[in-house]
Amino acid sequence: MSRTVYVNGEYVPEEEAKISVFDRGFLFADGVYEVTSVLDGKLVDFAGHMTRLDRSLNELGMKRPVDDAQMEAIHRELIVQNELEEGMIYLQVTRGAADRDFAYPSEDTPPSLVLFTQSKPLVDTAASQNGIKVAFVDDIRWGRRDIKTVQLLAPSMCKMAAKAQGADDAWMVEEEHVTEGTSNNAYIVTKSGTIVTRNLSNSILHGITRAAVLRLAAESQMKVEERPFTPEEAKDAAEAFVTAASSFVQPVVEIDGVTLGDGKPGPIAKRLREIYIAEARAQAI
Amino acid sequence: MSRTVYVNGEYVPEEEAKISVFDRGFLFADGVYEVTSVLDGKLVDFAGHMTRLDRSLNELGMKRPVDDAQMEAIHRELIVQNELEEGMIYLQVTRGAADRDFAYPSEDTPPSLVLFTQSKPLVDTAASQNGIKVAFVDDIRWGRRDIKTVQLLAPSMCKMAAKAQGADDAWMVEEEHVTEGTSNNAYIVTKSGTIVTRNLSNSILHGITRAAVLRLAAESQMKVEERPFTPEEAKDAAEAFVTAASSFVQPVVEIDGVTLGDGKPGPIAKRLREIYIAEARAQAI
Repeated sequence: MSRTVYVNGEYVPEEEAKISVFDRGFLFADGVYEVTSVLDGKLVDFAGHMTRLDRSLNELGMKRPVDDAQMEAIHRELIVQNELEEGMIYLQVTRGAADRDFAYPSEDTPPSLVLFTQSKPLVDTAASQNGIKVAFVDDIRWGRRDIKTVQLLAPSMCKMAAKAQGADDAWMVEEEHVTEGTSNNAYIVTKSGTIVTRNLSNSILHGITRAAVLRLAAESQMKVEERPFTPEEAKDAAEAFVTAASSFVQPVVEIDGVTLGDGKPGPIAKRLREIYIAEARAQAI
Repeated sequence: MSRTVYVNGEYVPEEEAKISVFDRGFLFADGVYEVTSVLDGKLVDFAGHMTRLDRSLNELGMKRPVDDAQMEAIHRELIVQNELEEGMIYLQVTRGAADRDFAYPSEDTPPSLVLFTQSKPLVDTAASQNGIKVAFVDDIRWGRRDIKTVQLLAPSMCKMAAKAQGADDAWMVEEEHVTEGTSNNAYIVTKSGTIVTRNLSNSILHGITRAAVLRLAAESQMKVEERPFTPEEAKDAAEAFVTAASSFVQPVVEIDGVTLGDGKPGPIAKRLREIYIAEARAQAI
């Protein structure tokens, strides 16, 4: 069964979902994206994704193709047309199509907007039951990881490098400290029970799920430190996890070949996952 | 008049030149490119571009969609169909279309191939007559600039930052040394007449035109040093220039607000441009 995809105002079968080869998203990676999770056919933290989309667009001087209400309507239409119960909706805005030039095209170039759905289990997954393995890989990404652009070959390469080491994902390392996972924020829990995750800066993505999870951790009287941590600290941790819109809180059970604790998801990661999913379900629109 | 564009085996009018929104070139900047200049309807240094394309593909574990002979035939067909006398042919290979995943798709995913022409004067240009102005901008690109990928938003942003300062292009600076221009290699000529350009590494593109120009400079008994240089050295230079496939040797007459010499293209840049264009015309196929 073919998915319905949204491309610049039209709902089309995925086989017909095409954009110009002159689109700056294709030629220059001149585009930004968001991935919103869907639970029970509803959107999780949609407002958060719209706020971050605005930030990305502003940082790049890129225009918004449609307003929040229209964007929400497109998301809902795709949920209906694709009968999406659980999964993600991917959204990409680019600076539009123009003849190739490193300089941005004229201001009246219409931005491009593409959305599609991905149906998959998010709550009951083997990865959340068993935890995942991560391996350290040099962070070779650009300097503005706080902007959610489609310059994603670098993290894609890092993920493949981790897989080549037998891991599920990479934890990227820069100047002897972990930045984040290839498409998620990274956390360790020290043996004294403190959750440690890197502070916000241009070095990491400002995760929507990260913000929610840190709030929920604080509300649950968990101790949190926002600071960079080293690979050595990570391997010495009691437990670890990652957060992302599409995986919520995902336990990490092995880091660079070192098994954490008894090799099973830790209690803090499990608890935060439960709390996060319960709130996500309750708040989804 | 609409150009004819090549997309995955078909020659189509540019308005119909489209690729899947699931193409990894669009979603992940998971693609590489080459730009070959055309003079007198002939290809300049085609073999050099094919060699570099192979290197880029190998570095990324990406498949080659067609062999050199087929690639040359496509270039020639576009020259004929678009009656291209002078300009460029742009070529992009991506890892192909697949449902969105940071991990690479299965090995049997066919790579995508797109080519299009851009007709424009390359030899007699105002920029080569008058020289261009460059401004220093922080180099925020990723760590593998030796691979010619379409992760080009960063240099595009740097170019726009330079333009906002009233310059034509940026010279990007990292750790207090110039790396290169946003789509060209950067050179200064010291007051004692030595051409200085950064040595090859992962920090800069391995320019096809750079290699040719350095060979021609050596053959003309010019003194060349391949090493990083500082912004201060650049502003104190006798003259400066950039090289790229589509601009050959382009004189630089102002660096970060400082006029070099009498503000006109310098003799070494002019001479190298003449020699380069003469050889390019003679060797074009």
